Amino acid sequence: MNEESILAGLPRQHPNLILGPGDDAAIFRPKAAEDLVFTTDMFIEGVHFRKLAPKEVGRRALARALSDIAAMGADPRFCLASVAFPKSADKTWIAQFFVGLMLLASETSTAIAGGDLSHARHLVADITVCGAVPRGKALRRDTARPGDILYVSGPLGGWRNRTEIAPRLALGKQLRGKATACMDISDGLALDLHRLCKASAVSAVLDDIPLLPNASLKQALHDGEDYELLYTAPPKTRVPGLRIGALRKGRPGQILLDGAPINPTGYDHFSRTRP
Amino acid sequence: MNEESILAGLPRQHPNLILGPGDDAAIFRPKAAEDLVFTTDMFIEGVHFRKLAPKEVGRRALARALSDIAAMGADPRFCLASVAFPKSADKTWIAQFFVGLMLLASETSTAIAGGDLSHARHLVADITVCGAVPRGKALRRDTARPGDILYVSGPLGGWRNRTEIAPRLALGKQLRGKATACMDISDGLALDLHRLCKASAVSAVLDDIPLLPNASLKQALHDGEDYELLYTAPPKTRVPGLRIGALRKGRPGQILLDGAPINPTGYDHFSRTRP
Repeated sequence: MNEESILAGLPRQHPNLILGPGDDAAIFRPKAAEDLVFTTDMFIEGVHFRKLAPKEVGRRALARALSDIAAMGADPRFCLASVAFPKSADKTWIAQFFVGLMLLASETSTAIAGGDLSHARHLVADITVCGAVPRGKALRRDTARPGDILYVSGPLGGWRNRTEIAPRLALGKQLRGKATACMDISDGLALDLHRLCKASAVSAVLDDIPLLPNASLKQALHDGEDYELLYTAPPKTRVPGLRIGALRKGRPGQILLDGAPINPTGYDHFSRTRP
Repeated sequence: MNEESILAGLPRQHPNLILGPGDDAAIFRPKAAEDLVFTTDMFIEGVHFRKLAPKEVGRRALARALSDIAAMGADPRFCLASVAFPKSADKTWIAQFFVGLMLLASETSTAIAGGDLSHARHLVADITVCGAVPRGKALRRDTARPGDILYVSGPLGGWRNRTEIAPRLALGKQLRGKATACMDISDGLALDLHRLCKASAVSAVLDDIPLLPNASLKQALHDGEDYELLYTAPPKTRVPGLRIGALRKGRPGQILLDGAPINPTGYDHFSRTRP
């Protein structure tokens, strides 16, 4: 098994992908009326996960990046998969990793355009995804307005018992032209809502936070890995989802719950490593 | 120092980059008459490098990917930088890493559109670069023809004493519409030429291999990290570069030197890790 044979075996189903894995770079022919969105997401053993079946590692590595694509209101077009495997990962493990990744790629019509394979002490996967959206229609986090209603796509606090991430691609698409701002909740509602409010220069008042069974309010606010969408829309616009509060003028980034400000703390993969 | 402040401080100089770091994804508006090319390249401590100054690590991580963009005949547009830093990398080290990366990004007009920062035992950088090329003009490796002359962009065998990689972007652009095929030499001439010949279903006859001072023929053939371009053109087409041989009908992928076939062995970052 070598790098070329693995990458050459991957599906490349998107018609605008002129050239898939095997050359120095993939070639993609964009449609004139579309903007492209790009995200990259690292998934590292010992940081983002510990014990997981290889199929699940491959699936989640892609799912995390697809959640960002959903948050932009975009359709995934293709991904690039860079993976460094540890010595302990044998042929079967690696094959199962790619099965997990390819199944989700296939379910979401995401072509695998290329990648880079190497080795490291622990598994490091970095998945880049390109999505497309009608020109000017991408959902951003800096465009929410005072008076907007705040929604989430599902109950929160699932980090500790979540087995699967289902990127909210259909919902993201549905929100195009309706939501004023959108992002995914990957690091906890408190930190992610703080980011949205700061980017949009508004503050938020939370009144109702939907919890998963057995989840605490603290988990919903400050734990990561929910992968639900957080979005805003004017009061008169009907959007699917669960209403959790509203935005107003005020200190940018401030969040009030029961009249008191909450700390915008959550999971920061990077600063956690710094003293 | 947190992830947001680092990413927000990066330059984003390309006019078609509608939205840079800070949202779930970057937004890029492609030009109608262009194809986009995408490459991703991992640069891992202990695998691709051992002792290097942080500035040099940042620079090389990007340079390796830009070399692929050059090989496609493309202009770089933007990059996404995913980096997992070891605990030993303090603020200064990380800042210097980004200085190295940003200087090369700036020299080559590559916007930094986003990224993901995390931590790992050893440094793992994965740089994705998007380049653009007039529609249908990307240089591929599967389009060489029997009778074509074979060129390299410079003398080879520099792996052991190379301090800097200068991606051949200007040359790649010059070769558009002239070269029949092109790729970069990252894993040694023998292995990379074998790949080109196999992809194009031709064989090659080498007659003259230009060597760097103090480099052996063996190093030029089988060591990696030269980052020169390897390309082909019809005999009547004038292209810059050093002529090293010609292509002919024959066993696809076979390379003859002084009448004898040479082994297509080189640096395979991935299979080297497998027993």
